[in-house]
Amino acid sequence: MDGGRQERPGSGRQATAEEPTRPLVRVVVQPAGRRIEVRSGTTVLAAVRAGGLEIVAVCGGRGLCGTCRVLAAGGGLTPLTGQEREVLSPADVSAGVRLACQAAVVADARVDVPPESLTAPQRLQFEGRAAGVTALDPAVVALDVQVRPPALDDLRSDATRLQDAVTAAGQPAARTSLAVLSAAPVTLRARHWAVRAAVHRGVTGEGGSEIIALLPAGTAPLGAAIDVGTSKLAAYLVDLETGETAAKGAAPNPQLAIGEDVMSRIAYADAHEPGARDLHARLLDGINGLLGKLRGQIGAAAGQVVDAAAVGNTAMHHLLAGLPLRQLGRAPYVPAVTDALELRGADIGLELAPGALVYLPPNIAGFVGADHTAALLASGAAEGDRTALVLDVGTNTEISVVRGGRVWTCSCASGPAFEGAHIRDGMRAAQGAIERVSYLEGKFQVHTIGGGAPAGICGSGILDAVAAALSAGIVSERGRLSRTHPLVTSSAGEPACVLVPAALTAHGRDILLTRTDVGEIQLAKAAIRAGIELLLAAAGIEADALEEVVIAGAFGSYLDVASAIAVGMLPRLPEERFRQVGNAAGLGAQQLLVSRLRRGMADEIARRIRYVELTTHPGFADAFAQELTLGQVALEPTDGRVR
Amino acid sequence: MDGGRQERPGSGRQATAEEPTRPLVRVVVQPAGRRIEVRSGTTVLAAVRAGGLEIVAVCGGRGLCGTCRVLAAGGGLTPLTGQEREVLSPADVSAGVRLACQAAVVADARVDVPPESLTAPQRLQFEGRAAGVTALDPAVVALDVQVRPPALDDLRSDATRLQDAVTAAGQPAARTSLAVLSAAPVTLRARHWAVRAAVHRGVTGEGGSEIIALLPAGTAPLGAAIDVGTSKLAAYLVDLETGETAAKGAAPNPQLAIGEDVMSRIAYADAHEPGARDLHARLLDGINGLLGKLRGQIGAAAGQVVDAAAVGNTAMHHLLAGLPLRQLGRAPYVPAVTDALELRGADIGLELAPGALVYLPPNIAGFVGADHTAALLASGAAEGDRTALVLDVGTNTEISVVRGGRVWTCSCASGPAFEGAHIRDGMRAAQGAIERVSYLEGKFQVHTIGGGAPAGICGSGILDAVAAALSAGIVSERGRLSRTHPLVTSSAGEPACVLVPAALTAHGRDILLTRTDVGEIQLAKAAIRAGIELLLAAAGIEADALEEVVIAGAFGSYLDVASAIAVGMLPRLPEERFRQVGNAAGLGAQQLLVSRLRRGMADEIARRIRYVELTTHPGFADAFAQELTLGQVALEPTDGRVR
Repeated sequence: MDGGRQERPGSGRQATAEEPTRPLVRVVVQPAGRRIEVRSGTTVLAAVRAGGLEIVAVCGGRGLCGTCRVLAAGGGLTPLTGQEREVLSPADVSAGVRLACQAAVVADARVDVPPESLTAPQRLQFEGRAAGVTALDPAVVALDVQVRPPALDDLRSDATRLQDAVTAAGQPAARTSLAVLSAAPVTLRARHWAVRAAVHRGVTGEGGSEIIALLPAGTAPLGAAIDVGTSKLAAYLVDLETGETAAKGAAPNPQLAIGEDVMSRIAYADAHEPGARDLHARLLDGINGLLGKLRGQIGAAAGQVVDAAAVGNTAMHHLLAGLPLRQLGRAPYVPAVTDALELRGADIGLELAPGALVYLPPNIAGFVGADHTAALLASGAAEGDRTALVLDVGTNTEISVVRGGRVWTCSCASGPAFEGAHIRDGMRAAQGAIERVSYLEGKFQVHTIGGGAPAGICGSGILDAVAAALSAGIVSERGRLSRTHPLVTSSAGEPACVLVPAALTAHGRDILLTRTDVGEIQLAKAAIRAGIELLLAAAGIEADALEEVVIAGAFGSYLDVASAIAVGMLPRLPEERFRQVGNAAGLGAQQLLVSRLRRGMADEIARRIRYVELTTHPGFADAFAQELTLGQVALEPTDGRVR
Repeated sequence: MDGGRQERPGSGRQATAEEPTRPLVRVVVQPAGRRIEVRSGTTVLAAVRAGGLEIVAVCGGRGLCGTCRVLAAGGGLTPLTGQEREVLSPADVSAGVRLACQAAVVADARVDVPPESLTAPQRLQFEGRAAGVTALDPAVVALDVQVRPPALDDLRSDATRLQDAVTAAGQPAARTSLAVLSAAPVTLRARHWAVRAAVHRGVTGEGGSEIIALLPAGTAPLGAAIDVGTSKLAAYLVDLETGETAAKGAAPNPQLAIGEDVMSRIAYADAHEPGARDLHARLLDGINGLLGKLRGQIGAAAGQVVDAAAVGNTAMHHLLAGLPLRQLGRAPYVPAVTDALELRGADIGLELAPGALVYLPPNIAGFVGADHTAALLASGAAEGDRTALVLDVGTNTEISVVRGGRVWTCSCASGPAFEGAHIRDGMRAAQGAIERVSYLEGKFQVHTIGGGAPAGICGSGILDAVAAALSAGIVSERGRLSRTHPLVTSSAGEPACVLVPAALTAHGRDILLTRTDVGEIQLAKAAIRAGIELLLAAAGIEADALEEVVIAGAFGSYLDVASAIAVGMLPRLPEERFRQVGNAAGLGAQQLLVSRLRRGMADEIARRIRYVELTTHPGFADAFAQELTLGQVALEPTDGRVR
């Protein structure tokens, strides 16, 4: 095992001579409006990323591809490099264009990051928006120990003397993992008996801590928080001693090549024996590749990553753990396991320190996964005596209602409309997608990602468009388009509303909202709102009683709450009760990584959840039918029965 | 995971129609004198093996090689097969020769097994000779459970419902192994929710039991006891519900191709990086091959083997666990680990049920391994308030003195003379080897393994020869040969004693005992006896105080105690205090397999052991020099100091 050679960032002992003298400088990144403090000498690329923005850098920051173009808008950047002169045109240079990977910040500065240099979605992760600060209490701690070498009068085994040294350093070590046993005889001698021992402090009720890795002296123990999304993988490398995120990034889930949604992947795994193995292998390739990239950014070896926490929906959870999917694709859709798991990374093919464990929080049900547990945790909504609604909107929308310490949770099939699928001019939230729509003075106003000419419309834009058309009277509560309205035309035999005329689009064709498009939103709205209402009924409360509504997930960060209320997807409540928390699952994974207390809370939350199966709920069909009407609908009282 | 398709022996429910009607028949095997009861229809090969004898069957019992020849000596065997007519000569056939793998016993019968058909050593394992009967209390138990299938009103995960069913059946199941989680969704449904769950009941202090395998209903949970010898592997498949040995066998350790002794293998592992991996792979191939053969004999699948206990010297222990050897080859020779280990079989490459664990009892020191712990355990010598000497004689001899609940243990380099190496006419204990020597009426009387003309002399014969020559005055206490004795001649310039004249040997050359041969025995005797005396001194007792002397190991089973006393290797004590227990390590492994109590005792014994390092002991050089004299030597009092 190689514990990695990365020196601890900010470790005074090992720091280079100039390190402590590098002053903090401030970078303002426009148009995102971020103010980021970094050490002088940090590249613009690293600074922008430190601010939570993901900038395109196809060549990995080597100054070759020219994709990380930014505009120097004043202040202290280092002079143009030869590499920049080679990649940029003279016009670029005179316009102030710089390559973010080449230009370093040496004094307070301002840079404009053009939308095309930002990856979409623009905000990969959110910071400081989640309730509750997690006190640092990681499962794995590192201790510098000087192990006494063997001598003729001290013939203890290598494992015993290592455990004794760790115990003497204040952390009882009951055992040593096989991986460390295999490495210790050589590592201890090669490092002259001075090592940093990474100790997993054990799980409540499991008794006994375990030495899981040996790190070179002075290296930080890192943890990996992994959010396994159906479409996207996000990962964070966290310094377990400071709780700081050392590197973070995202990558597409390589299983996308097999199928866009969970059901198509379950079908693939089901169709032939190697299917699940193939999906597992693709997923692990993707995660290992992403983690490798992040480690590369900070010069850390895999052996330095001594703990991991991973969240995902139940299917992604199972594919990560190497568990079969078949039973998830057949009624009554039960998971292989719901309890939290601690698996050896090596057993599932995750590249960590050889003895490291991966923590997976509890699943709730076949279609409510550990990611929802993590989101409930990170949002803080399940804590104390809150009355709250938490929902993660996607192709599948998970909803929880919290009241008096109890949690009612369901899952509903909201369809892929919010990802731009099944929509005539739908597209993913990428460059050129309409993300905001309003209706003003007889015309639609649109705003695109990147600000350029529109090429299509993404989820938040579609929701806005329906809400705007509804308020303008173009669309009725039943979803019909007014054929008399001047903006309504016809497309392929059905009425359609012109959002952007051909002359103003990127491709020279009208961008339309069709009757079918509206129908997709009606279906999604009906499913989500029916789920909310049935959970409220189960909890015995009205929507008014909700102290807060937490909207999690990528789409949830971008949807316009007013539009969601206008179409009736969300209950009409004062604006201040809504909280859009972005990737709460990812934040939950980070909290679980650095806090044993949070792991205990995840178990506790899972225990308190009453799962409500909508497909067999006696009130669901009626509620769904009623909620197909756009706008706020007075739901008829149900008997509150939950099966 | 495939839990195996083997039906439980004797299980009426699943037995085939003819099974219960097959009567028991008795086979008498000569010259070993074993009486074996088997079901009618059992091949002679299987019957002989069931009786604890190992018969050579190079082709694996397919009737091709002709190595398993036996002589039908009366009674009911099936008629000659076509295969036998092809392999045997007409003279063989008329003499009554049969192939043991082809002939089946259908009524009481007698077969003579010629020595050349028996593998050496003749007695692979001993039965019923160890002290103490172990009560059946295996770590792994199997429970027949009927798991409730999922339903719309019962959406528990597969793992939860399985654990609940096992807990309801009386065995709390805290968790499920990853291997079972992976298999359970498919297995539970394929078996209509009726399974036998194999549950590892956990280790004291570890809290929480684990479901480690799913067996088909009606199959016996099997355990594998494995004795990893430097030269030979022995394995036993034990029915964990009855404690009965279902199959047993031995195979050469495939590492023999790398080097005959432990040190040469450590050197090989040390010389180049893949060395240890190569040794590990060879060992696992050997063990898996042997276990596969045993499973084949009883028609069991690997998935049916749900627990294992393995013993070996420290180097074999490390190679089995995949731990490095380098530190065992360098002063001060410390093991990587001494604590008992429970490793996932899959992690070390052992073919068991995928979730099964392998238990390795504690090592004592670099040259006193878990096999000595197991031998101490099996001999019962460390129990209660006994005062005992336990030794396992080999190239390396491990010695323990037990007194008042405390144990003093050392290891001494006794050399390979007892394996026939470094001896002019030495050979292993195989066909034609002189195993007994006495001196009567001016001549040596010898007895060979197999009774034929002698070809050489094995360990027990050499010890006898020196003892006999000493009593006859041919060899002096200093090891000198009397040149005036008529049997003493000269060989390559040194005096040598003729044990068997050329005319009577298999190869037509004198079989001699040379001055150098005697010197080898002197060295071995001195090392062992010095070790015994220093341990006695450490324990503060004289040899007379020993209530019993337990001699373990293959060579220990065959050595003549009177000869060992005559040369002074063992103290002169009444004959009844000596107990030769054969393969105590193998018996210990079987006990550890079926008894959690014994596992606890192994830890306890290891804790009570005070390891005495002879190489640095202040009294060792003197004691060794003094003990080079043959016969009982009055050892000068030592100060009893133990470093």
